[in-house]
Amino acid sequence: MIQNKMFELVFQGEKPDSSEALADIKAVFTNGNSSQSVKGFYDGNGTYKVRFLPREAGVYSWKVTGAVKAEGQEECTASTQHGMVHTQGCHFVYENGDSYIPFGTTVYALIHQDDALEKETLQTLQTSPFNKIRFCVFPKSYEFNENGPREFAFCKDAEGNWDVDHPNYKFWNHLEEVISQLQEMDIESDLILFHPYDRWGFSKLAPEQNETYLRYLVRRLSAFPGIWWSMANEYDLCFAKSKEEWYKIEEIIKEEDVYGHLLSNHYCMKPYDYSRENMTHCSLQNVLFHKADKLMRKYQKPIVFDEFCYEGDIHYSWGNISAQEMTHRFWCAYCIGAFATHGETYLSDDDVLWWAKGGKLKGKSPERIAFLRELMESLPSAIEPWYEPESVTFGDEFLGYKAGPDHPIISLVTSLTEPEDDAGALKDKIFSGRCGDQVYIKYLGKHCPRKPFFILPEDHKYKIDVIDTWNMTRKTIMTGASGITWLDLGEAKEGIALLAVDE
Amino acid sequence: MIQNKMFELVFQGEKPDSSEALADIKAVFTNGNSSQSVKGFYDGNGTYKVRFLPREAGVYSWKVTGAVKAEGQEECTASTQHGMVHTQGCHFVYENGDSYIPFGTTVYALIHQDDALEKETLQTLQTSPFNKIRFCVFPKSYEFNENGPREFAFCKDAEGNWDVDHPNYKFWNHLEEVISQLQEMDIESDLILFHPYDRWGFSKLAPEQNETYLRYLVRRLSAFPGIWWSMANEYDLCFAKSKEEWYKIEEIIKEEDVYGHLLSNHYCMKPYDYSRENMTHCSLQNVLFHKADKLMRKYQKPIVFDEFCYEGDIHYSWGNISAQEMTHRFWCAYCIGAFATHGETYLSDDDVLWWAKGGKLKGKSPERIAFLRELMESLPSAIEPWYEPESVTFGDEFLGYKAGPDHPIISLVTSLTEPEDDAGALKDKIFSGRCGDQVYIKYLGKHCPRKPFFILPEDHKYKIDVIDTWNMTRKTIMTGASGITWLDLGEAKEGIALLAVDE
Repeated sequence: MIQNKMFELVFQGEKPDSSEALADIKAVFTNGNSSQSVKGFYDGNGTYKVRFLPREAGVYSWKVTGAVKAEGQEECTASTQHGMVHTQGCHFVYENGDSYIPFGTTVYALIHQDDALEKETLQTLQTSPFNKIRFCVFPKSYEFNENGPREFAFCKDAEGNWDVDHPNYKFWNHLEEVISQLQEMDIESDLILFHPYDRWGFSKLAPEQNETYLRYLVRRLSAFPGIWWSMANEYDLCFAKSKEEWYKIEEIIKEEDVYGHLLSNHYCMKPYDYSRENMTHCSLQNVLFHKADKLMRKYQKPIVFDEFCYEGDIHYSWGNISAQEMTHRFWCAYCIGAFATHGETYLSDDDVLWWAKGGKLKGKSPERIAFLRELMESLPSAIEPWYEPESVTFGDEFLGYKAGPDHPIISLVTSLTEPEDDAGALKDKIFSGRCGDQVYIKYLGKHCPRKPFFILPEDHKYKIDVIDTWNMTRKTIMTGASGITWLDLGEAKEGIALLAVDE
Repeated sequence: MIQNKMFELVFQGEKPDSSEALADIKAVFTNGNSSQSVKGFYDGNGTYKVRFLPREAGVYSWKVTGAVKAEGQEECTASTQHGMVHTQGCHFVYENGDSYIPFGTTVYALIHQDDALEKETLQTLQTSPFNKIRFCVFPKSYEFNENGPREFAFCKDAEGNWDVDHPNYKFWNHLEEVISQLQEMDIESDLILFHPYDRWGFSKLAPEQNETYLRYLVRRLSAFPGIWWSMANEYDLCFAKSKEEWYKIEEIIKEEDVYGHLLSNHYCMKPYDYSRENMTHCSLQNVLFHKADKLMRKYQKPIVFDEFCYEGDIHYSWGNISAQEMTHRFWCAYCIGAFATHGETYLSDDDVLWWAKGGKLKGKSPERIAFLRELMESLPSAIEPWYEPESVTFGDEFLGYKAGPDHPIISLVTSLTEPEDDAGALKDKIFSGRCGDQVYIKYLGKHCPRKPFFILPEDHKYKIDVIDTWNMTRKTIMTGASGITWLDLGEAKEGIALLAVDE
């Protein structure tokens, strides 16, 4: 047993009498005064498994009851394994305290392709900038997703209907193989439990069938440290499920997942209620980067722009932004302290689009995302939104009124409705963040000042770098900067970030 | 007297006893059964003027009363003069029925520069694509607007305060000279009556002073066909004026302007109430092009994006977008049936920035705007927003439900709140318009499909052109197109528009 790694007990026993998915087996793991009860599962051929994710080092005694009875003891050695990702305020952090900044990508039908393609995808990921991947349990039926899956999650009954009480063990073992390989590469599996793009009937299972499926899934997978639960891709298009069923799904996951993995729900048009206690973070589909700071204040949870159009050239608007625009959107998100997920949809003669099936990445944004990731991971702490005190540049007086808290512009600003305030941000916002007083960053985006300012604390001295986000260059243009600092970039262009680092 | 041209009567008389601004002189012009009463004004040196804009041909008899008494008769010859611009639904049209599509620019302190610069500005406008210009009556005090004006609108009293009852006639004659020259070039003067960027006290005149100023101004200027009233630049930053004063200002203008020139009010953060009856159109400062169609439905008035950042490189976010972005925003507006106003703010060694003082245009967007204007003016009628029936590409079934009005996605879409609907538009919207069934246009903007579709009526045949908005090329790629039409652009790039013209 190794701290923060999955531990597995395997037993032989009698095939379950009733549901193979809800086999009667559980274990209690005890380490000193702390004790954890976990459910095991049946894996076919008389094999029962109990999995456990030990998060503390020490000596664990365990006792298995139900269809199998056994007990034993294991020493869990302390390790430097990352373990699970948790939230910490509006950011993420690994169980072992290491920083984790998600850089996601999307391959919805990753596990439903043939071996050769899956291998190629995993190889691509190995050298990609991505450390989180969104993919589905169920196969996908949609344009560019016409091929059938290699395996289904369940067997069929005599009438040809899905029998959720009879898992297809080949499917589940393969899924776990993929999750394990991703874990090896430090890539989190943001596993999508439901989605509407279906021709096999998985999107229209009855609530009781969904419950059985979920209980089996979570009992099998929750001891993998590298897993997140994404209740759906576009939950609001899953028309067979009511709001109450989604709430019930949350409860089932919470009940079965004793570790508290990250949990969210992705939408198409109608945002899920991210204020719900079970939601660990916001999984958004929109381009409202200018609202990320407001959302952080509102939810006090990490904001992940999990879908905001893919780099590509297909006919759908959601799948044909340029590499420049994808890169731009990533910078908007990260410089304000939010996170983003990539996807790629280039038409291909072999009909293999990354977002659907994986394969090779063809776009020009991944290397820019790698450059951004390198920068973000070099920072001393997580980025918080920063409101640069721009008004100080106005001087003592503005519009004929003395600067200060009584200036009439203050009551105008505070009188704005949310849409009015959003409209202003959408027009003018610079994406600015800080790591305490150590680092300030401003991503200028579509704005191209030739001689921008940077309003820094007066009691520190900063080195200022100019970053060209597209050409991936970084150049120091000033040292010893302090207070209101004017810069000369020599040229005016889009996609520039300014970075001030405390000397 | 010429139809749709200003007619002026000039008299000598006694200097007014009290206010020179509110001199007692009026005239009645009668043409057959129709009669119009207009007020005249004092122009200094014992000169009184009465101006009249005849909109019908015929024989007018006129009678002047008050400080001067006179009468006479004039034949008004029919002309092809454009006359005033009016609204027609969500578009504009000249008095004589000719189409008018506004392509605005901004030179706030146009009339406050020296002769040489003003002449250069007017020369620049002569060959520019702009047919509307926003400029201020009062001088401007702000960064890049530090120089004092050549003349002020009023004289000062013995205590050195502005005396609105004593107009500075030199100022007014110069202003009219500029308006006349602009009219000669078919450029509408979108005259800004108030603004907050002031160091002389014009923004803090008392309501009674503003009233005198306005009555004088409208009596002098309303017979110019080429004039629009913009109550303010950024009314909401004019902190000395209450909402009630703005409403009163509307009423004063309405009372004095017997012709009903276009009237709107421009804001910084808090949109004016464009549903008010006196507002002829919406003068917006935002980048919410994706909402233009909704605003048209709401207000049933033209939507003019009068400010949405300027092409330039100054340090303010509102003044440093690229020529590409400016061009993009123009196309967004026009292809959905809205309108836009340009401005330019490039740093300059001589401190002459177009948006402030005029001079020469340095940017790369004007020639693209000219290209857009040429296209727009070639269309058979005004553009209305078009909702391409994209859903037909889904086929008979979508997400496991039969296509049609009972598809569950319909109730999802209709359940969306306005912010949810806006968020979707902001992410995916293609700016699409139509001229009846004769022309369909789709501006793809940041979206780069390589093989886009165009869903056209099945009972017409269209020629389809691909327009590169940046490189200003237009190429026919298909003829005889009808119904669901798939195109192959050969490449995927930003800034493409597709135009289908009925053969």
